[in-house]
Amino acid sequence: MTDSQLETSMFVMGNRARAAARTLAQASTEKKNAALVAAARALRDDADLVLAANARDMAAGAEKGLGPAMLDRLRLDAGRIEAMARGLDEVAALADPVGAVMAEWTRPNGLRIARVRVPLGVIGIIYESRPNVTADAGALCLKSGNAAILRGGSESFHSSTAIMDCLRRGLAAAKLPADSLQMVPTTDREAVGIMLRMTRHIDVIVPRGGKSLIERVIAESRIPLFQHLEGICHTYVDGSSDLEMARQVVLNAKMRRTGICGATETLLVDRRVAASHLPVLIGDLLEAGCEVRGDEASRAVDPRVKPALTADWDTEYLDAIIAVKVVNGVGGAIAHIGAHGSQHTDAIVTEDQHAADRFIAEVDSAIVMHNASTQFADGGEFGMGAEIGISTGKLHARGPVGVEQLTSFKYVVRGTGQTRV
Amino acid sequence: MTDSQLETSMFVMGNRARAAARTLAQASTEKKNAALVAAARALRDDADLVLAANARDMAAGAEKGLGPAMLDRLRLDAGRIEAMARGLDEVAALADPVGAVMAEWTRPNGLRIARVRVPLGVIGIIYESRPNVTADAGALCLKSGNAAILRGGSESFHSSTAIMDCLRRGLAAAKLPADSLQMVPTTDREAVGIMLRMTRHIDVIVPRGGKSLIERVIAESRIPLFQHLEGICHTYVDGSSDLEMARQVVLNAKMRRTGICGATETLLVDRRVAASHLPVLIGDLLEAGCEVRGDEASRAVDPRVKPALTADWDTEYLDAIIAVKVVNGVGGAIAHIGAHGSQHTDAIVTEDQHAADRFIAEVDSAIVMHNASTQFADGGEFGMGAEIGISTGKLHARGPVGVEQLTSFKYVVRGTGQTRV
Repeated sequence: MTDSQLETSMFVMGNRARAAARTLAQASTEKKNAALVAAARALRDDADLVLAANARDMAAGAEKGLGPAMLDRLRLDAGRIEAMARGLDEVAALADPVGAVMAEWTRPNGLRIARVRVPLGVIGIIYESRPNVTADAGALCLKSGNAAILRGGSESFHSSTAIMDCLRRGLAAAKLPADSLQMVPTTDREAVGIMLRMTRHIDVIVPRGGKSLIERVIAESRIPLFQHLEGICHTYVDGSSDLEMARQVVLNAKMRRTGICGATETLLVDRRVAASHLPVLIGDLLEAGCEVRGDEASRAVDPRVKPALTADWDTEYLDAIIAVKVVNGVGGAIAHIGAHGSQHTDAIVTEDQHAADRFIAEVDSAIVMHNASTQFADGGEFGMGAEIGISTGKLHARGPVGVEQLTSFKYVVRGTGQTRV
Repeated sequence: MTDSQLETSMFVMGNRARAAARTLAQASTEKKNAALVAAARALRDDADLVLAANARDMAAGAEKGLGPAMLDRLRLDAGRIEAMARGLDEVAALADPVGAVMAEWTRPNGLRIARVRVPLGVIGIIYESRPNVTADAGALCLKSGNAAILRGGSESFHSSTAIMDCLRRGLAAAKLPADSLQMVPTTDREAVGIMLRMTRHIDVIVPRGGKSLIERVIAESRIPLFQHLEGICHTYVDGSSDLEMARQVVLNAKMRRTGICGATETLLVDRRVAASHLPVLIGDLLEAGCEVRGDEASRAVDPRVKPALTADWDTEYLDAIIAVKVVNGVGGAIAHIGAHGSQHTDAIVTEDQHAADRFIAEVDSAIVMHNASTQFADGGEFGMGAEIGISTGKLHARGPVGVEQLTSFKYVVRGTGQTRV
């Protein structure tokens, strides 16, 4: 395909998505849920077709020399397909945000004003190798009444296409427009560039993937994004913290799962408890198999602590590595996080309510926590149901992006013939 | 100044705004209100200085050959200065959105989650000749805890600078950082281009002015915008409308003030009442001095109706001109608005609740009205207090943008040592 042919076919997709979005915005909760449940059934019924498609991707991936972590992200099996299907059922069970009245008031002249949730319109999803994003993101867009255009990675092309087929069969079963969910039918890199300029067709882009993908999308997009570039999350152990609580929270925040964006990457410890707490906290981490890179004070604790370089304070390891620094109280922690954080999730462990309040007020992150593990930074853990991602932006959606965050609103004004003076 | 010197000095402003924003985000309601009230007092005390500055702008404007409408927008007098001062007092009296708890819930594991309003950070205001925008927009940013960088038009440079001086004296009186409100000290056009690329320094840009300014800002900005390009507002008179109500609403919607964005630009009339309603509605408009440009059916009503050209359906007149078209019921009205509207404000006049409900559901505009004049599209009329503008975007802010819309939020998670399973 030439670039101009590709652009034309992308625009056709965009027009179809816009038309489908108009229908979807008016669709009943029952119809949307029926589509989700039917899609889950299609996934279960045709699990063998999806697995066969995945086998093609896996073979191509192995041939291309993908690493084991990449291949694991790509792999589907019966359990992962069932998890996807269950995910669709769970999204069907979520409350429908569309039509909800967010606020309502009456003016002195009798005008009744309501703020009512409506879908955003068309969401563009750009993702990499995990084929399950097709089902998860597609389901959240559908539930929130949005059409979606999905652009999966070349590695997962066959798997994602097979999954998309199940979703569209669900739409057809519920008599909803099949073009509510469309997959870009090419892995041409230029298709991403075109998507990012389709301001008339797409309302929001949600990129899901590694830092280089997100960086490209940020640099090129003319469409607003729900995204986070990275999660450089901090846990600050205050001078007034309980050591036992600090041990449990820090170990969980770093080591429960090291590859998620809410994992703590930097441990900050108040100088007042460096002598009492630091050796214990570092000992726990080393014992759990975590590499520790510390400042001078931390290195003095244990010979196994490696020296932290300047870059360590700005690194999202996504691995069993942690940077450790001693700071001067809550003010020092806030200053460090302001300079090195990514406005994702940061936590303080303390028994001192004043220190907690100050940390909460002054740390400018989407999620600030007191006495809890940063690994709770997740839409499911927040009780919002599934999430399409986490946003570190301040506009519209911040933190976990669930079905509610995939909506906008309109003002409905009801009168009895009022005219303005 | 060379372009690189200009860029450097703009970045310095940006850094100062960021630093001021950090302080301002933590400032008490009392301090912010004290600054606003002190600024109002400074405006009143130094009205003569502001008038002298305005006289310089007016003289330069007359010499440049500005038209009478432009000169009127530029002109200040004692009454307009007092109105500005009163506006500052009114913003002081508004509720402070910062710190408000928007939602709060407790998870089964005991985590308490709250969604708390915080300022957006730094707002960039780019405006044209009305010097009062300096006070109005500056006050709304300050009240919502945001720093602001204002870039006024060259015509109003001296007036805006004098007004800004009063605002900054208010900040100083309340011991808030003077750099909370800064004015770009040059009318160099390139300064706007630099502002629109200052993604690290500015969180949102609010452009205020004519279509060519907004178009430039949309084309160039790398920063999210709160804006509307135009307000092509429709009033649809349904077959089941009450003629007397329709007459009053239509006349008010078009003629109360023709130059505001909520003024109706197109009248749509249901074919079922074309015979009964159309002649009366057109007669009212012609009698009020409105030029009527109509389709064939409208032209048949009165020889004074001029033929509407294709472009008329897409034109924001901002003048005593209206386009009139006969459509096939509410479906025809929705289709016309979908094709030609600007997603600003559209109204239906009808006694038929089903028609109203369908119009409200299917018209995809920031504000949809039933039996009311589109001229109510205004933050003040909505009871939101002053507005910095109206947004037709779907993200974050839609409709009137008041102090609440100038905030973001953060999630505050309070635990007792919870770790994630």
